[in-house]
Amino acid sequence: MKLKTIFNILFLALLTVLTVWTVFVEPRPAAGPDAIGVIMTRTSIRRYEPRPVEPGKVDTLLRAAMAAPSAGNKQPWAFVVLTDTALTDSIARHIGPARPLKGAPLAIVVCADTTRTFAGPAHDFWVQDASAATENMLLAAHAMGLGAVWLGVYPMAERTRFVGRLLGLPESVLPLGIVAVGYPAESPAPKDKWRPEAVHANRW
Amino acid sequence: MKLKTIFNILFLALLTVLTVWTVFVEPRPAAGPDAIGVIMTRTSIRRYEPRPVEPGKVDTLLRAAMAAPSAGNKQPWAFVVLTDTALTDSIARHIGPARPLKGAPLAIVVCADTTRTFAGPAHDFWVQDASAATENMLLAAHAMGLGAVWLGVYPMAERTRFVGRLLGLPESVLPLGIVAVGYPAESPAPKDKWRPEAVHANRW
Repeated sequence: MKLKTIFNILFLALLTVLTVWTVFVEPRPAAGPDAIGVIMTRTSIRRYEPRPVEPGKVDTLLRAAMAAPSAGNKQPWAFVVLTDTALTDSIARHIGPARPLKGAPLAIVVCADTTRTFAGPAHDFWVQDASAATENMLLAAHAMGLGAVWLGVYPMAERTRFVGRLLGLPESVLPLGIVAVGYPAESPAPKDKWRPEAVHANRW
Repeated sequence: MKLKTIFNILFLALLTVLTVWTVFVEPRPAAGPDAIGVIMTRTSIRRYEPRPVEPGKVDTLLRAAMAAPSAGNKQPWAFVVLTDTALTDSIARHIGPARPLKGAPLAIVVCADTTRTFAGPAHDFWVQDASAATENMLLAAHAMGLGAVWLGVYPMAERTRFVGRLLGLPESVLPLGIVAVGYPAESPAPKDKWRPEAVHANRW
C-alpha cells in the first residue's frame, strides 16, 4: 500500500470522527436562547399575529410563573387563561391601557388568592409574589418567540372590580394584572434603560 | 482516473464541507444557560462562599434589574449595592428573616424613588415595577452561577424604617427588598411548585 493511500485513509478517518463528534457527541449549550440575553432584550409587544399560541407554550408560561419565589413560599398566585375573545375584547373596551388585548390570541390574568397569603402586616407581600410570577411569564414568552405585555389592574379599584366581576373571581381573589400574549406582529427595539445614577454604593 | 478514486474524492469533499459547516458555520445558540431552564431551576440560596462577586457580574445584575418593565415606563427603581459587611451584618441582626445577609459577600437593596412614580391611584404600581426588577436580578444571578435570595422589607413598617435609616435613604425612597448574593455554598433542589388547580380557563 502506498504511503499516500495510508495518508488518505487516515485523513478520511479523522474527518469522519470529527464530523460524528461535532454533530452528535460534543456537549452543546441548551437549545433555548440564553437567559441574560432574554432578560436584556425583552420588550413590551402590543400587536400579535392572529394564530393561536400552542397549548405546550401556554403550559410553559404557567410553569414559569409558578417557579417564581414567594414570601414564606406561600405561592398565593392563581391564573385565568383567556382564549375567549369576547372576554379579552370586553376588557380592552373597558380599560384604556388594556387595548393590546383587542386582537391578542391569548391573555393570562395573574391573580392572588388572598386566602393563601399571610395575615397581618406581611399580607401585602402577595403583590410582590404575583409580580415575580408575572415577570417570569414575560421572560418565558420572549424566550419562546412570543411577544407579551404586562397590563396593570390592581391597585386601580375600578379595573380590579371590573375584571373580578367579568371573570367571576371570588371576593378573596384579586387580579394583579393581565399578560397579553401572541406571536409578535411588531418588532420594537428594546429600550436602553440603564441609569448609572440609580446605583448607590453602601449608602445613599 | 478510476471511478473509485473519484468516489473517494467526492466523499472526502463531502465530509470536509460537513465538518467545516458544523464547526464554524451552523448558527449555534448563545453560550449562556437557556432562559427557560434558568427560570425553572432558580431557587433561593442562603449560604455563600466568602469570595467576592466580580464587579462585571454586579454590573450585569443591575443591568438585568433595570431591563424590567415598569408601569408607564417610569423606571422608579434605585439600588444600593452593599459590600460593607458592617451594614449587611447589622441588617441580619435586626431583621430575623434577613439572616442570610450574615456572610453574604454582596447584597443589593432594591428601592423605589417615589418621586419617579405616578401620583394618585396608580402610585403603588412602583411595588410591581421594583418586584419585576428584583426577579430579573435573581434570574441573572442564577444564570451567572451565583446564588441569591429575596429578603422582604416593604411593607413591613419596622423593617422599612430600619433599612431606610441605616442606609440614609431620603424620605421619598422606600426599600422594597434586599437580594443577598454570592457563590453558592449549598445546592438545594429547586422546589416543584406546579399546581394545576391554580389554573382556570376563561372564568374562575
